[in-house]
Amino acid sequence: MYFYKNEFMNKADIQLSPDDRGYYFGDGIYEVFRVYQGKLYEQDAHMQRLQRTASEVRLTLPFTIEKIGQILTELVAKNKLIDGTVYLQITRGEAPRAHPFPTQAEPIMLAYCTEVPRPTATIHNGIKAITFADIRWLRCDLKTLNLLPNVMAKQAALDNNVQEVVLHREGTVTECSASNLMIIKDGVLYTHPANHLILHGITRAVVLRLARGLEMPVKEEAFTTGQLMEADEAFISGTTVEITPILEVDGRKIGAGTPGAYTRKLQEEFVRTFS
Amino acid sequence: MYFYKNEFMNKADIQLSPDDRGYYFGDGIYEVFRVYQGKLYEQDAHMQRLQRTASEVRLTLPFTIEKIGQILTELVAKNKLIDGTVYLQITRGEAPRAHPFPTQAEPIMLAYCTEVPRPTATIHNGIKAITFADIRWLRCDLKTLNLLPNVMAKQAALDNNVQEVVLHREGTVTECSASNLMIIKDGVLYTHPANHLILHGITRAVVLRLARGLEMPVKEEAFTTGQLMEADEAFISGTTVEITPILEVDGRKIGAGTPGAYTRKLQEEFVRTFS
Repeated sequence: MYFYKNEFMNKADIQLSPDDRGYYFGDGIYEVFRVYQGKLYEQDAHMQRLQRTASEVRLTLPFTIEKIGQILTELVAKNKLIDGTVYLQITRGEAPRAHPFPTQAEPIMLAYCTEVPRPTATIHNGIKAITFADIRWLRCDLKTLNLLPNVMAKQAALDNNVQEVVLHREGTVTECSASNLMIIKDGVLYTHPANHLILHGITRAVVLRLARGLEMPVKEEAFTTGQLMEADEAFISGTTVEITPILEVDGRKIGAGTPGAYTRKLQEEFVRTFS
Repeated sequence: MYFYKNEFMNKADIQLSPDDRGYYFGDGIYEVFRVYQGKLYEQDAHMQRLQRTASEVRLTLPFTIEKIGQILTELVAKNKLIDGTVYLQITRGEAPRAHPFPTQAEPIMLAYCTEVPRPTATIHNGIKAITFADIRWLRCDLKTLNLLPNVMAKQAALDNNVQEVVLHREGTVTECSASNLMIIKDGVLYTHPANHLILHGITRAVVLRLARGLEMPVKEEAFTTGQLMEADEAFISGTTVEITPILEVDGRKIGAGTPGAYTRKLQEEFVRTFS
């Protein structure tokens, strides 16, 4: 069961128009919510980010945030979803193709659920990554449908038999293809500041809160690929990957090449936030 | 009459899937062809660019270039199009939402015609522009569906009661929201080199050829917003705008603030290429 425009309907009944600006321009925004035990995780934070992105790209949401929350909750219930994700997308509406904002179009909301188990194997065992040039636009803080660079980056990882890319701008690490990156050095947690160059991850914010609760020093400072290689531990954070250790980058071990003690501690604390 | 996937059909019969990667990721490419007197203008150049973009984003075209050309020609005939445009879009196909390239999906082609008269008023009278920060990704040479920054830039122009933006990276002019920019100073034509920072415009190439034919010196060199302000003439080039003079930028006149003699000469030569 999907939600499309104004109602719940079967996927097969959705009548998507080629004139949807999501299709011609990627002119839309999205959020992916984690559902744990039938409940939307960090719902308020996702909704605030949705509102912020909408405001920055000047897209009027089709419903109030409260109403969107109700719809998603109903969607989860209708689909009897226990563990999974809710994908929510809102485009600027249908209009004959022309760059300027259409004057008449109504924004179009699409939402659906997917059953997704927690990726416990990679959370436990960690993953490998390669470094990759970050060539994205300069508003990576906006969660829009313009995702081709992220797609290309992720595919580059798979082509190199690793699971992720570490994006960098001339050696300064920003984030990964669809997650934030954190390193630990001498007990201090470092991650790129939440500016225009990275997505302001919901899980990122949760992890920083947990780290502070554990009295770990947190520095929201950019670091280089060189500093990453010299880190004691590294991990990515994201809605679906949660906290996943990075063991190797470009074939070189990070720290001991095994999930680190701080990472493990943060993983434990993270699980407590939803269980 | 549209073309979709493998056949000609009415727009209302198109069954677009929400799983089309064009919709989730802007994971597709496009071309806009000009049709003059029932014929596709500069068809080979557009097809070469389509092939290049497809290759760079690693998207397999669903048909040979020859076959695509036949389909578009038939589309023009079926729609009895005399003066207008053909829009062609190819996405990476339908698959459940996930960043990596799908292994099974077939690329999806969509094409349609639109009657569009030549914009003779603005070609004759010129337009005004504002400068605007170019925050796009670093592969602006690829004609992909990730067009939100272009949409936002164009809208910024309209909000400022002008028709175009002059995009610049820290003062270095790149191009406009959907056209290339050229200036003339002391009889020399300057335009940004065809690298990763601009679209390699088909009309841009035609204009450079015409300028050389007129024995105008051509310099494919980047120039600054300051140099633009000091130019004798400025104009944009593009498939639908053809050669349109820019008379004012940020409220300041370019040259005399009227379409210049070199621009007029290039416009005359340009009309000869299709009439």
